Amino acid sequence: MYNMSKELVKTLALIGGTHGNELIGVYLINKFNNNPSLIQRDSYKTITLLGNPKAIQAGKRYIDTDLNRCSREEDLANNQLTDEYEQLLAKQHKKHLIDQESVDMIIDIHTTTSDMGMTLILHDNNPFLLQLAAYLCHIDPSIKILQYSINSEPSQLRSLAKIGLGIEVGPIPQGVPKADIFHRTEALIMQIFHYIQNYNTQQLPSIPQSFTIYKQIGIMDYPRDEESNEINAMIFNHIKDYEPLNPNDPIFIDFNGNTIKYQGKSIVYPVFVNEAAYVEKGIAFSLTTRETMMI
Amino acid sequence: MYNMSKELVKTLALIGGTHGNELIGVYLINKFNNNPSLIQRDSYKTITLLGNPKAIQAGKRYIDTDLNRCSREEDLANNQLTDEYEQLLAKQHKKHLIDQESVDMIIDIHTTTSDMGMTLILHDNNPFLLQLAAYLCHIDPSIKILQYSINSEPSQLRSLAKIGLGIEVGPIPQGVPKADIFHRTEALIMQIFHYIQNYNTQQLPSIPQSFTIYKQIGIMDYPRDEESNEINAMIFNHIKDYEPLNPNDPIFIDFNGNTIKYQGKSIVYPVFVNEAAYVEKGIAFSLTTRETMMI
Repeated sequence: MYNMSKELVKTLALIGGTHGNELIGVYLINKFNNNPSLIQRDSYKTITLLGNPKAIQAGKRYIDTDLNRCSREEDLANNQLTDEYEQLLAKQHKKHLIDQESVDMIIDIHTTTSDMGMTLILHDNNPFLLQLAAYLCHIDPSIKILQYSINSEPSQLRSLAKIGLGIEVGPIPQGVPKADIFHRTEALIMQIFHYIQNYNTQQLPSIPQSFTIYKQIGIMDYPRDEESNEINAMIFNHIKDYEPLNPNDPIFIDFNGNTIKYQGKSIVYPVFVNEAAYVEKGIAFSLTTRETMMI
Repeated sequence: MYNMSKELVKTLALIGGTHGNELIGVYLINKFNNNPSLIQRDSYKTITLLGNPKAIQAGKRYIDTDLNRCSREEDLANNQLTDEYEQLLAKQHKKHLIDQESVDMIIDIHTTTSDMGMTLILHDNNPFLLQLAAYLCHIDPSIKILQYSINSEPSQLRSLAKIGLGIEVGPIPQGVPKADIFHRTEALIMQIFHYIQNYNTQQLPSIPQSFTIYKQIGIMDYPRDEESNEINAMIFNHIKDYEPLNPNDPIFIDFNGNTIKYQGKSIVYPVFVNEAAYVEKGIAFSLTTRETMMI
């Protein structure tokens, strides 16, 4: 097992409302602010943060641009890049969380309209996160681990810290809190906090040496009209998050009932199926491979 | 059976996109515009309309105000009420649909984030609509009939016509088309068109003399903080659309796990549970009674 005992988690930032219409994180942060003892642990300090206060107030994902795409090193260092509210906000968050508070780890709570259940999103092969993922999958096999491409620099708010973890829960409409998902997300955060405390105090339980990981390998846009660029087909009903998609399976169906088939050569696993916020990004769903990750 | 043979449906308006982020109606109208023969019938003329083109373009429910609350007779007659885009739009629709085209019947297609399946919404006891409802429930018992309060003047766009019918389908996120719901909605419209053609040509099949109707009797707002007016509890998990809610059943759960119970004295049936667009209207869900409607 990888030994990170010299690098304890000293300061953790727990963030909700990076997208202002994803209310589970907003309400959890409000709850923890009203009940700080719930997230206090002996071995590390926890800072809470509402990621995008103006967007939360407005009930929108963002005001000018997606805050969760504003934290590339180059963009943060570019002092000209301040026209949009979220560009400025990302710089403020970096100053506060990293320069002032020396946060080691960020956990950012998101929701999705996709049926992705409880998903943890990783951006790299950070050994601490891989062990945490193995632990969480062991105690709750319904938890899914999704790894974004490790070949591109992440722009997410959580990537400000050395250890950046996304929590993605769904399905839930934008702008609505759902009690069952609220409670499952809170329980997941408590499990993570418990793990970090045990990690810091070298009381980790035995952890399986492997777990199932879904690695993002690409995205699939909706078919679009060449002239207007409007969507002209819908995702085929059988496409489900984390379920296998085989070569030649139908993936879209146009408004006249014609199907469009998957042209890939191997089995993939779609995620973010019917995520409402991704339509504007040109994403009908993301494609992943399902692998066994050894730690 | 009520005899309306003297009052045929001569001109029907089929509307989608009255709310710009409810895409099933938008895509169905586009499909029918591209394939007009699908909705042509011998005995009546059908006009299609995209209710709120600017909101559709913007991917929002509305630009300034909810178009589906702008069609009270008094508001339409008030020529001072034109500051908001939708107020103007409602007046334009009335002029076009009623004054120029003499539309008898409007069918307006909506979607909901609630799990309401295929629901028809009535605003009155119009005998033609009651017979249509009985027919549709007979051929597809999963279809639900919801009647809004008949004691208040409706403000919905469909209430411009003598016969106003709402179609409400879900669950579906705002801003996303879902193939299964698209196809079920299209099939429902085809069944309605088939019925109208048979009605007009006096070839109606035998129709049951009663059906189950859910009559709206009130609304239930989220519990809110007295000072900030922010929501401070979520809908309890067991609250489901069209399922009985008994006196003293939990209806909300606050962020600390305390439940709030239903104070009513009799069984009711919630609808529009977790409808995202209704949070701003102060509606967590609507309450209905379940009754047998005789025709």
